[in-house]
Amino acid sequence: MAAKSNFFSIVAGVGAGTGRSVALKFAKTYPVVLLARNPANYESIVEEIKSSGGTALGISTDVSNPESVTKAFSEIQKDQAFANKKLAAAIYNVGGKFIRKPFLELSLEDYEAGYEATGKGFFLFAQKVLPLLLESVEKSEHPPTLVITGATASLRGGANMSSFASGKFALRATGQSLAREFGPKGVHVVHAIIDGVIDIPRTKEWMVGAGPDAKINSDAIADSYWYLHTQPRSHFTQELDVRPYVEKF
Amino acid sequence: MAAKSNFFSIVAGVGAGTGRSVALKFAKTYPVVLLARNPANYESIVEEIKSSGGTALGISTDVSNPESVTKAFSEIQKDQAFANKKLAAAIYNVGGKFIRKPFLELSLEDYEAGYEATGKGFFLFAQKVLPLLLESVEKSEHPPTLVITGATASLRGGANMSSFASGKFALRATGQSLAREFGPKGVHVVHAIIDGVIDIPRTKEWMVGAGPDAKINSDAIADSYWYLHTQPRSHFTQELDVRPYVEKF
Amino acid sequence: MAAKSNFFSIVAGVGAGTGRSVALKFAKTYPVVLLARNPANYESIVEEIKSSGGTALGISTDVSNPESVTKAFSEIQKDQAFANKKLAAAIYNVGGKFIRKPFLELSLEDYEAGYEATGKGFFLFAQKVLPLLLESVEKSEHPPTLVITGATASLRGGANMSSFASGKFALRATGQSLAREFGPKGVHVVHAIIDGVIDIPRTKEWMVGAGPDAKINSDAIADSYWYLHTQPRSHFTQELDVRPYVEKF
Amino acid sequence: MAAKSNFFSIVAGVGAGTGRSVALKFAKTYPVVLLARNPANYESIVEEIKSSGGTALGISTDVSNPESVTKAFSEIQKDQAFANKKLAAAIYNVGGKFIRKPFLELSLEDYEAGYEATGKGFFLFAQKVLPLLLESVEKSEHPPTLVITGATASLRGGANMSSFASGKFALRATGQSLAREFGPKGVHVVHAIIDGVIDIPRTKEWMVGAGPDAKINSDAIADSYWYLHTQPRSHFTQELDVRPYVEKF
Repeated sequence: MAAKSNFFSIVAGVGAGTGRSVALKFAKTYPVVLLARNPANYESIVEEIKSSGGTALGISTDVSNPESVTKAFSEIQKDQAFANKKLAAAIYNVGGKFIRKPFLELSLEDYEAGYEATGKGFFLFAQKVLPLLLESVEKSEHPPTLVITGATASLRGGANMSSFASGKFALRATGQSLAREFGPKGVHVVHAIIDGVIDIPRTKEWMVGAGPDAKINSDAIADSYWYLHTQPRSHFTQELDVRPYVEKF
Repeated sequence: MAAKSNFFSIVAGVGAGTGRSVALKFAKTYPVVLLARNPANYESIVEEIKSSGGTALGISTDVSNPESVTKAFSEIQKDQAFANKKLAAAIYNVGGKFIRKPFLELSLEDYEAGYEATGKGFFLFAQKVLPLLLESVEKSEHPPTLVITGATASLRGGANMSSFASGKFALRATGQSLAREFGPKGVHVVHAIIDGVIDIPRTKEWMVGAGPDAKINSDAIADSYWYLHTQPRSHFTQELDVRPYVEKF
Repeated sequence: MAAKSNFFSIVAGVGAGTGRSVALKFAKTYPVVLLARNPANYESIVEEIKSSGGTALGISTDVSNPESVTKAFSEIQKDQAFANKKLAAAIYNVGGKFIRKPFLELSLEDYEAGYEATGKGFFLFAQKVLPLLLESVEKSEHPPTLVITGATASLRGGANMSSFASGKFALRATGQSLAREFGPKGVHVVHAIIDGVIDIPRTKEWMVGAGPDAKINSDAIADSYWYLHTQPRSHFTQELDVRPYVEKF
Repeated sequence: MAAKSNFFSIVAGVGAGTGRSVALKFAKTYPVVLLARNPANYESIVEEIKSSGGTALGISTDVSNPESVTKAFSEIQKDQAFANKKLAAAIYNVGGKFIRKPFLELSLEDYEAGYEATGKGFFLFAQKVLPLLLESVEKSEHPPTLVITGATASLRGGANMSSFASGKFALRATGQSLAREFGPKGVHVVHAIIDGVIDIPRTKEWMVGAGPDAKINSDAIADSYWYLHTQPRSHFTQELDVRPYVEKF
C-alpha cells in the first residue's frame, strides 16, 4: 500500500464488514481515519493497514455525541500524519442499533435509536467533513466524495421496523439534500442501498442453504465505493442499489 | 352537526388550515379532540364546532413531550363527553418548525427540529392512539383510521431542506411500517402527501398571479381524509398525493 | 338513478368487476357509455342501468384498433341521448391479456399484448376523450376527469411479467405526461394502482382461506373513482394505491 | 487493445456518444459487435477499434425488426472472429426517435415510436442475447451482463413526453423483470438512468454558459458500464443514476 497522498479519507462506523473493507480499499491511496465507538472495532484494521505500508488512525468516537465528534476531528488535526492533508473522501457507514419489534413494544429510546445513529450521527459527521471536502474541490484528483451506506429500510418501512427505517429514511433525506446543495459546488454525495446480508462472522449461520455467494462480499462494496469516488463531476451517481443475485426484491 | 356517536376522533396539530378543516369535517360525525401546543390554535375551532351542535375538546399539548402527550390522553379519559367512547379516527397533522437554510448554517437543534415534530412526536401520538384504534376494529362503522399529513419533502430531500425532509421521511417510514403491521389487524394507516401551498391567511400574499385555485383549499383535504376513513378494509389506500392543478411536479 | 345531466361519462374496459361497478356508480349522475370488445361484457350492465332509470349505451370496441375507436366515438355523437352532452368523466379500465411466462418462452405477439391493450389502446382512447374533456373545463360541476386503472405491475416488473408490466409502465408514463400537460388546463388525470385481487366470479376460488375481505370489492374502487372525480382543481390527486388490508406490499 | 478473449460483447445502438465510448471500452477486453441501423454510425468506430489492435464487427440492424435482428445474430455466428466465442456482455443503448410535442398533435406512429425503439427493440435484442449470456454463467471471468441505457424519462413522464417516456418506462419494466428472472440464474441485468445531456457534437451548442463539465462525458458512462460488468454476483447493482454535478434533479 502507498499512502503518500496529500489527501486523506475517513470512515465512520468501522467493524467486521463494510467498514473494514472500505478502510482497506481507500488506504491503498489515502491515509485513512477510522471511527468507531469501540476501539476493538478498528484496532486490528489499523494494524492491518499499517503492516501493509499504509497510514491509519483509529479514534474512539460516538458519532451521535457532538463533543465526541468534535474531539475526533481535533485529534485528526493534531496528528502529524494527517494535519497537513486535505480530505478526499468520507464514508458514513454507521449502522446503529437494529431493533425489530412490534410498534407497541418499543420504548421511546428504542424508537429514537434509529435516528440517533443515522439521523443525528450523520448530521454531526457531515457538518465536520463537508467544509473539509469543499476545500478539496478542484484540488483532489477525483471529486471530493461523501458516501453514505443505506439499507433496504432506506426505501421501505417494513412491519416492526419503524425504529431502523425512520433513521434510514432520515439519512437518505439528508443525503439527497446534501447532494443537491453540495453537488453544484463540486462535492459528490452518494447514497448506496445495501439490500442483503453481508458476509461477516456474525452472519455465518444465516442463509445457509441459499447457495454460494448468497451473502454480499463487503470487498465488493468497497470496490463500488471506490468506483463512485472516481466518477468525474460530469457523471455523478446519487444512488445505487446492490444485492446478491439470489436476493428477492 | 350531529355528534351522538359512540366513537370519537382526534386531530393533532390544529391551526388555521388543514387541522381546522379536518376537525370541522370529522366533527360532523364524531366528537373531536383537538391538540395544539398553543390554545389560541384550537380555541376558536372548538367554539365553532360547539356552536354548530358538535362536541369538541381542545387540549394544549406538546406532542414531542412524552409527559404532555400522556397528560392529554388522560384528560380525554376524564372528560365525560369522551370517557366512554372508542376512537374511530386519529389524524396526525403536526407540521413542526419549518427551517430552510444552508446545511452548514444549521445548528444541531435546527436539524433535530424536523425529527422532534414529525418523528418523535408521531411516535408518541401513535403509541397512544393505536391501542385505542385496535379496540374499535369490527366495531366502528368504518375501519378505524390513522391519517398522517405528509408534504413534498416526504419524498424529496431538496437543497437546504435537510431538517424538514429528514423529519418528513422518518414520518413516512413509520407510517409505512404501521400500515404493514396494523393493516392486517384492521386499522387503516394512510399517508397523504400535500404537495403545494395551502390557502390560509399566512399564505395570502404567496403565489399571487398564479391564477385562481392555485393554492390548496384545506376543506378539500378534509374531504379526502374523510373519504379515506370511509374506505372498507378490502380497499385501503396507503398513500395519496394532492396538489393544485397548476403545480409543477 | 337520475341521468338528466348535460354531461356524460364513458368507461372503456367493462367486465364483471371494476368496469361494471364504475359504470353503475357514474350512471347515478351521468349517462354512461360502456366500451368492451365483447358485447356480452356490457349488455347486462346496460340493462341494469336502464332498469334503474339511468341512461347507458354499450358499444363493441377494440381500443387498440384506431378505426374501431373512431367508429365508437362517432356512434356516441349520433346517439340522441348523448349527442348534445359534454364529457365529464372518462375511465380507462382496459386490462388486456394477462401473460405470465418465462421471458424466453414469450413470442413477440405475447410481449406486445401488454402494450397493445394498455399503451396503444390508452393512447387512442385518450386522444378521443381529451378534446371532449377540455370542452367541459369550467362548465362541469366537477373538473373533467380521466381516471386510469393501474396495477401492482405499474410500479414493479416482476419475474415472468415483462409483457404485462411493460404495458402498465407505459400506461403510467402516459398518464403522468397527460396529468402534467392537461392538469394546468383544468383536466384532472389520475392513475389508480389496484394492488390486489378483485372479488369477481372468476377469482372465486382464489385466496380462499385468506379471511374475509381479502379480495377487493370493486364497488369500493368505483367509490374511489367517483371521489377522485369530485376533487376540486386546487386539490388534484395524481396517484393513489389501494389494496386489501391483508395484502403484503 | 487486447482482444484474445474467448468471450465477446455486443452493443446495440452505436452512435457518437455512449455507444462509441462503450464499444471502445469493452473492446479493450473483448471483441465487440456494433449494431446500428445506419452503417455510418459504426464504421469509423469499427476502424478505430481495429487500428488499436482490437476486434470489431459492425452490422446494420433495425432492432425493432425481428428479421433484421435474427439476421444480425446469424451473421455473428458466421464471422470467424466471433463464431466460437461466448457472450460476456450485451449493452442496449438504442435511443429511438425523440418526439416532444403536445399529446393531441401526436400521430399514432409518433406515439408508438417510443415503444418501437425501447420496448419492442429491447425485447427482440434480449431474446437473442439472454440464451447466450446464460451459456457464459460460471464460465466468464465476470458474471455475464446485460446493461440497459435509460434516461430521465424512465422515471418521469413529463408534459409532451408521452411517446419517449412510455417507451422508456416499458424498457425499465422489462429490465426489472429480467433482473428478477435471470439474476438468480447468474446473469446480471442492470438499468442505468442517464439524467442529463451527453457531450457530443450534436449537443455542442446546448447548455453553453452552464460551466465546465455540465454535459456528461460518455467515456465516464462507459467506465460505469464496465464497472457494473465486473461486479461479482454477491453484489449486483440493478439500477444507478448519473448526472452532471450542476444538473437539477
